[in-house]
Amino acid sequence: MYELGVVYRNITRADRAATDGLAALGSATVHEAMGRVGLMKPYMRPIYAGAQVSGTAVTVLLHPGDNWMMHVAAEQIQPGDIVVAAITAECTDGYFGDLLATSFMARGARALIIDAGVRDLKELTKMGFPVWSKAISSKGTIKATVGSVNIPVVCAGMIVNPGDVIVADDDGVVCVPKALAAKTLATAQAREANEGEKRAKLAVLGLDMYKMREPLAAAGLKYID
Amino acid sequence: MYELGVVYRNITRADRAATDGLAALGSATVHEAMGRVGLMKPYMRPIYAGAQVSGTAVTVLLHPGDNWMMHVAAEQIQPGDIVVAAITAECTDGYFGDLLATSFMARGARALIIDAGVRDLKELTKMGFPVWSKAISSKGTIKATVGSVNIPVVCAGMIVNPGDVIVADDDGVVCVPKALAAKTLATAQAREANEGEKRAKLAVLGLDMYKMREPLAAAGLKYID
Amino acid sequence: MYELGVVYRNITRADRAATDGLAALGSATVHEAMGRVGLMKPYMRPIYAGAQVSGTAVTVLLHPGDNWMMHVAAEQIQPGDIVVAAITAECTDGYFGDLLATSFMARGARALIIDAGVRDLKELTKMGFPVWSKAISSKGTIKATVGSVNIPVVCAGMIVNPGDVIVADDDGVVCVPKALAAKTLATAQAREANEGEKRAKLAVLGLDMYKMREPLAAAGLKYID
Amino acid sequence: MYELGVVYRNITRADRAATDGLAALGSATVHEAMGRVGLMKPYMRPIYAGAQVSGTAVTVLLHPGDNWMMHVAAEQIQPGDIVVAAITAECTDGYFGDLLATSFMARGARALIIDAGVRDLKELTKMGFPVWSKAISSKGTIKATVGSVNIPVVCAGMIVNPGDVIVADDDGVVCVPKALAAKTLATAQAREANEGEKRAKLAVLGLDMYKMREPLAAAGLKYID
Amino acid sequence: MYELGVVYRNITRADRAATDGLAALGSATVHEAMGRVGLMKPYMRPIYAGAQVSGTAVTVLLHPGDNWMMHVAAEQIQPGDIVVAAITAECTDGYFGDLLATSFMARGARALIIDAGVRDLKELTKMGFPVWSKAISSKGTIKATVGSVNIPVVCAGMIVNPGDVIVADDDGVVCVPKALAAKTLATAQAREANEGEKRAKLAVLGLDMYKMREPLAAAGLKYID
Amino acid sequence: MYELGVVYRNITRADRAATDGLAALGSATVHEAMGRVGLMKPYMRPIYAGAQVSGTAVTVLLHPGDNWMMHVAAEQIQPGDIVVAAITAECTDGYFGDLLATSFMARGARALIIDAGVRDLKELTKMGFPVWSKAISSKGTIKATVGSVNIPVVCAGMIVNPGDVIVADDDGVVCVPKALAAKTLATAQAREANEGEKRAKLAVLGLDMYKMREPLAAAGLKYID
Repeated sequence: MYELGVVYRNITRADRAATDGLAALGSATVHEAMGRVGLMKPYMRPIYAGAQVSGTAVTVLLHPGDNWMMHVAAEQIQPGDIVVAAITAECTDGYFGDLLATSFMARGARALIIDAGVRDLKELTKMGFPVWSKAISSKGTIKATVGSVNIPVVCAGMIVNPGDVIVADDDGVVCVPKALAAKTLATAQAREANEGEKRAKLAVLGLDMYKMREPLAAAGLKYID
Repeated sequence: MYELGVVYRNITRADRAATDGLAALGSATVHEAMGRVGLMKPYMRPIYAGAQVSGTAVTVLLHPGDNWMMHVAAEQIQPGDIVVAAITAECTDGYFGDLLATSFMARGARALIIDAGVRDLKELTKMGFPVWSKAISSKGTIKATVGSVNIPVVCAGMIVNPGDVIVADDDGVVCVPKALAAKTLATAQAREANEGEKRAKLAVLGLDMYKMREPLAAAGLKYID
Repeated sequence: MYELGVVYRNITRADRAATDGLAALGSATVHEAMGRVGLMKPYMRPIYAGAQVSGTAVTVLLHPGDNWMMHVAAEQIQPGDIVVAAITAECTDGYFGDLLATSFMARGARALIIDAGVRDLKELTKMGFPVWSKAISSKGTIKATVGSVNIPVVCAGMIVNPGDVIVADDDGVVCVPKALAAKTLATAQAREANEGEKRAKLAVLGLDMYKMREPLAAAGLKYID
Repeated sequence: MYELGVVYRNITRADRAATDGLAALGSATVHEAMGRVGLMKPYMRPIYAGAQVSGTAVTVLLHPGDNWMMHVAAEQIQPGDIVVAAITAECTDGYFGDLLATSFMARGARALIIDAGVRDLKELTKMGFPVWSKAISSKGTIKATVGSVNIPVVCAGMIVNPGDVIVADDDGVVCVPKALAAKTLATAQAREANEGEKRAKLAVLGLDMYKMREPLAAAGLKYID
Repeated sequence: MYELGVVYRNITRADRAATDGLAALGSATVHEAMGRVGLMKPYMRPIYAGAQVSGTAVTVLLHPGDNWMMHVAAEQIQPGDIVVAAITAECTDGYFGDLLATSFMARGARALIIDAGVRDLKELTKMGFPVWSKAISSKGTIKATVGSVNIPVVCAGMIVNPGDVIVADDDGVVCVPKALAAKTLATAQAREANEGEKRAKLAVLGLDMYKMREPLAAAGLKYID
Repeated sequence: MYELGVVYRNITRADRAATDGLAALGSATVHEAMGRVGLMKPYMRPIYAGAQVSGTAVTVLLHPGDNWMMHVAAEQIQPGDIVVAAITAECTDGYFGDLLATSFMARGARALIIDAGVRDLKELTKMGFPVWSKAISSKGTIKATVGSVNIPVVCAGMIVNPGDVIVADDDGVVCVPKALAAKTLATAQAREANEGEKRAKLAVLGLDMYKMREPLAAAGLKYID
């Protein structure tokens, strides 16, 4: 259950260097490095291709059709943050557009992750402010009911605590708990190095590189000519 | 319920100047200017990014898997029109491709809004004929059953009367009743002017610009350090 | 029902020249040429716009969340093949990324058609390896259970036999049975030639070009001024 | 577009006898009698099996998560009415429960048709007040924004004008324009009579009863032994 | 791809005794007995609870919104058959009601499995004719285009060959290839016997009965007090 | 992110009396009593109508298509518990049937809430063991990968901590944090008492009972005769 009507001003953010280092690795490698957990649902899609970011989460809980708390969240943004917006019920309204993006960018936000809709796509694309969302919709919102900022939220099926690391790219959005940021960076970088080597070898076959022929036979696979 | 088997040839179109002026404002601003109503459902998406149009609606009612009436509608198009296509039941078939687009463009159509599927994306993109649709599908249609042209239709959840204004861009599709075209243009332009000012100020915070701090406190919002 | 745990090494592929000739015609024309059948469901979408390919199907049956058989399939690829991947239950996991793509490309594969998810979009786009999929997801898979290679599969609602022709573009994915490849090519080319002529004429009206006015009247269509 | 903030008190209701007579015929026969139009989308489902009703529509337009206008609509109900509720955006909240049902029943309402959610299923079932809805949800609503009563609305894809006839049963919900009520009743009763005869004969085969063998052969159907 | 316009009159049906024996085992046990394959997608739901049937498949391929071939299929029904209906594109129309059910029952059909909609629920329930479908819809269909009878079809994602065994109950629908009917019956009966024993013991714990404690520890599971 | 491979044996359960008292109030009243929060998404539906339960949550995290941890969870059940099952990715497989239900009932479980599929509906209904699920599916699962028991999980969009109270009925499923159980019971009982009074009065109109006429007029509502 969500705590309503509160703004936590002092949150502990994940280690900055680890957070920033995770962007280059991408959501797929980072999620693998954590043991294949932490991903939001695949309906979360970027508004334009090619953006790849990481940052520390400022969370916001909104009501359906009401973006009042977005303005409250804006004030809590510090450079290097990514805003993660959850809604108390399913909604596809356009909570966020170029005006709020101007405000978010001025505070140093790197992206918005929202389990609802966004609008002003052309302007956001020009401004280079990336958004991952469930929907695109012109539908505006009102400012009538208070929610909360910097409480733990569920966004697209994933628990996000304020200060956690968000990594987002064309493949999706992953959340790394702040306590695991440094360790995940190390594991992911090791994986990545390893992948470079693998890629070179995969002009050959994974069957041979990964020595799969024997276990496949043991699992009963039969070849028929 | 729909009237079947009729083509209304003489429809009253919205004021041309007001119609044409609405394109630049975009679907989000126009929908706000009408009091946040008039939007089609957000599943309506453009086949390519960046198109932004307005025009007067020529409506067409089609049967599932049957695009016969598209040809009947083509003849009713006048320069500056946008064809709005509704189907009597859910269907994702590709009702429209480059051949029909050639015909539509020759008559002066600016776009197609269709609550079904479209095909020939590559050619339509090259031709610069924008379509907003529910689906993309190669599946062709037959020509067997009559529907109607220029009757009121429900397209993506919204009532569209022939001659109404359609405004469409990357954010979605909005319908402005013809009687409200001029008034909506004026309101939307005022909003837009105002937004320019707001954007400049939003390097500051919406909390201050909109004087939200007091009403938020009144609504019970608490800050916790 | 699917035969599990088998790899058919010697499959009969559709005629190479017919297969290769179908790419230029596109999925919509090819599906029309077959009598409007053969299309996969329209939820299958390309990871980037503009790719247009044809090739002979190497089929693979996978389990949910398990891409082991992708490596087995890789070895069965011959130049000019397209891998068609079906899953035994609904799944959106990212079964395929840049590593496997390196392997597939080295064997001469032209594309992947997968009724599940894909990842590493940025790299796949750079590599120019097109994928049509149901989802995009960072979520990785395990290698634990054997499926089959080159058995008949159901992919996105369509039966695909190994060696059949796959034609895919921005409009969707169509499967041409290998026995019909040459005949379909001839029919589709005739259609295409015909479409060129039609396009020129459609600056006029389909109503006249197709002589629709009489049958429409016979079907009861009424014009009201 | 919807007119907001108005309640039309004096609406013309469809002929009472025709309205009441349509219940026994059911939604399928009535929709056929109108030429296979008038049906709401099949996601509208009854909260319990077996209810079969007809009545005159009192329409209400609500905002997402806000059921204030339900109380306004209640006052406009006359015996024999069915309330038809549309929402300005997609919503699954539970707008209606046993309290409102008590109020509606006291006014003589026969059912509710709502393009959103309903709750208190156990009590509504005990009370015998049937509801056709898009969703079932405990989620309550607020009372904050005015909509309208007795304006034309779009409910589950269908235009409903105040005073139109609604016919609903286990198969779905159909809307009969008030001007067509008597004619539709006559056509539907004729169909029904005819169906009784057909049913008796269908112990034989439709192929013979409907004399389909010749047209099927003409359409190219081939039998293979 | 589907062969259109043909009716195969002489199909080989699965062994009658094996077919009939499978009903009592239910879809879950039968699917397990085949190695967890053969199930249609879980969106296929029975129109009333409690029906549990098996039978030999008579397949029919229909066009969207057109049930003409249902009448052709009726003639091919023999006692003990279950009709399996596939559509060439997604459709939720009500293809089947009490009239056709009368015809099907007179021929000895035990059920209908349809990847589309059904209507006349109340009458079908009274008649005791079970249907598993994707949708319930009053929407009627036309009789205009020929499809096929007794060709291999894809129904709800599963390949069904004419003469295969269908087993359907409240849990779903499974298809057993005719060649495997007897073997599957034997395996399923063995499983069932075994389940009876297990059920008795499961008042204890699966952890102990299945000796899972050691493999769970080996897999790294840790208990924390 | 989820902690994998752990079983917390000693969890603090919500107050027993408060937990048990909440069943009679139902999910709608309980969710209102908490300020309209705490509900799982409305796609969670009971397998049979009429069950109404409350209990303390034993949580379990499962992998797609793998129910191994269900057996681990069974051992942690104490009388009065309700098992809440979350999956690391979307899945509709049938994780639970009559065998596991026997085991759960023997330990004193009152229900299962699962964000995936269930099977053996007929037997579960006979046994009187209620399940709220996202899907019904015959598809069985394997036992290969460890998850966790009694960690915080996200089930159908809601965070559930081990020991929290679950209240479920025909209207949906609500989670009450254990710390709020007693307070929520008191508030809900007060609401319920109040509702009894309201119900009596609602033979009149909510407009009068709730004194809505003045605020509606203030909000701009206009009556038109």
